[in-house]
Amino acid sequence: MKAENPLPRVAVVLVRASHPGNIGAAARAMKTMGLADLVLVAPRHFPHPDADALAAGAGDVLDRARVVASLAEALADRTLAVGFSARGRDLSHPAREWRSLAPETVAAAAAGPVALVFGNETSGLSNDELLACQRHATIPASAEYPSLNLAAAVQVACYELALAAGAFRVPDRPPRTRATGADLEALHARLQQLLVASGFLDLREPGRLDERMRRLAARLDLETEEVAILHGMLDSLGRRK
Amino acid sequence: MKAENPLPRVAVVLVRASHPGNIGAAARAMKTMGLADLVLVAPRHFPHPDADALAAGAGDVLDRARVVASLAEALADRTLAVGFSARGRDLSHPAREWRSLAPETVAAAAAGPVALVFGNETSGLSNDELLACQRHATIPASAEYPSLNLAAAVQVACYELALAAGAFRVPDRPPRTRATGADLEALHARLQQLLVASGFLDLREPGRLDERMRRLAARLDLETEEVAILHGMLDSLGRRK
Repeated sequence: MKAENPLPRVAVVLVRASHPGNIGAAARAMKTMGLADLVLVAPRHFPHPDADALAAGAGDVLDRARVVASLAEALADRTLAVGFSARGRDLSHPAREWRSLAPETVAAAAAGPVALVFGNETSGLSNDELLACQRHATIPASAEYPSLNLAAAVQVACYELALAAGAFRVPDRPPRTRATGADLEALHARLQQLLVASGFLDLREPGRLDERMRRLAARLDLETEEVAILHGMLDSLGRRK
Repeated sequence: MKAENPLPRVAVVLVRASHPGNIGAAARAMKTMGLADLVLVAPRHFPHPDADALAAGAGDVLDRARVVASLAEALADRTLAVGFSARGRDLSHPAREWRSLAPETVAAAAAGPVALVFGNETSGLSNDELLACQRHATIPASAEYPSLNLAAAVQVACYELALAAGAFRVPDRPPRTRATGADLEALHARLQQLLVASGFLDLREPGRLDERMRRLAARLDLETEEVAILHGMLDSLGRRK
């Protein structure tokens, strides 16, 4: 019942990017998050060796990148465009935190092509460029220094989108066989027996040692195999007495 | 009742970083998310002009960076160390998705100093380095190309941490005065009146026009001022008849 992955329908549009290295780094950021459609509006330098170098293993994204002359051209076939900008600049177009907007963007991408639009490194998106987008997103950042590098902003944006789409599942942990209550009781009993024998524990004045050790053991979430190792260690230490 | 901001207690530790540009870009990524404590374990080149250039406005983070010889030294005063690595390499140390681990890391940072640990660009963290960390985090990424740039990984990690800490609130939208039901009914009535007068709407055979227009208006979430503008436009168009 899993719907088709919508990420390939999402383009990243870089408007008037100044530094070709950032274009390459943005391509890499996209590919790590499963996006592949890069559109460059009037880039200052492209293609460029710096773009190739920073793209690393995402050269294919650069090779397929489309260069267009205007933002209107980039958005002509898009059914939703999300413009990214720093906080609250444009009063007429309220920005939303990208995390809260990402699920709606994924849903739109399931219905038609979508664009994430990023402005120039120095000036960001102009007001006109923002008004060409139907949504306006902000990546929360420090008020003291909110200036994310362009490719870093693309990385965060694509990461949020991929997580909102449930695109990548972190693989299950290797199967663990958790110890049972009986395993733990046997371990406690064996430890207590050895500590009495060694003189560390006096059962007439036990204090809170048992409580402390049980609290510690509970936190460990021991596996069956680890209980066996601990038994072996205790047996060995017991023999040394 | 807001607790003290824990982000300054979180160090980013880069182990054996190869490219000074990545060190600078990582410093910038940290500062945009409110982190300031950078620790470099045996960097290949530092200080370096590339680090300064990529740090942009985060030169103060670079200036205060501490260079140490070993990971053990970097972690000596830390009460929790989270090692970042690609998916599921180390079977004995199950990785968790960083988003699910970040809140626990914020809580730990409220109690004592914490480190986020990143490995070398090419080889990542070694098994020994991972075992020196008490937690192991993974940033979900495409199976086809999971290789985030080092500074991009630092950006995503710090971003998640800042959001888990609730560090930055996107400023409230500018206050909107939403139109009331009476505003909307008056607008519908005026539109209907004009469309009847113009001949577009025949009230004996209205079809579903009213329904379509109400559905559209509902989606607009109109503001009071916008209702006034639309009334003005309708009045103007009505006069032209």
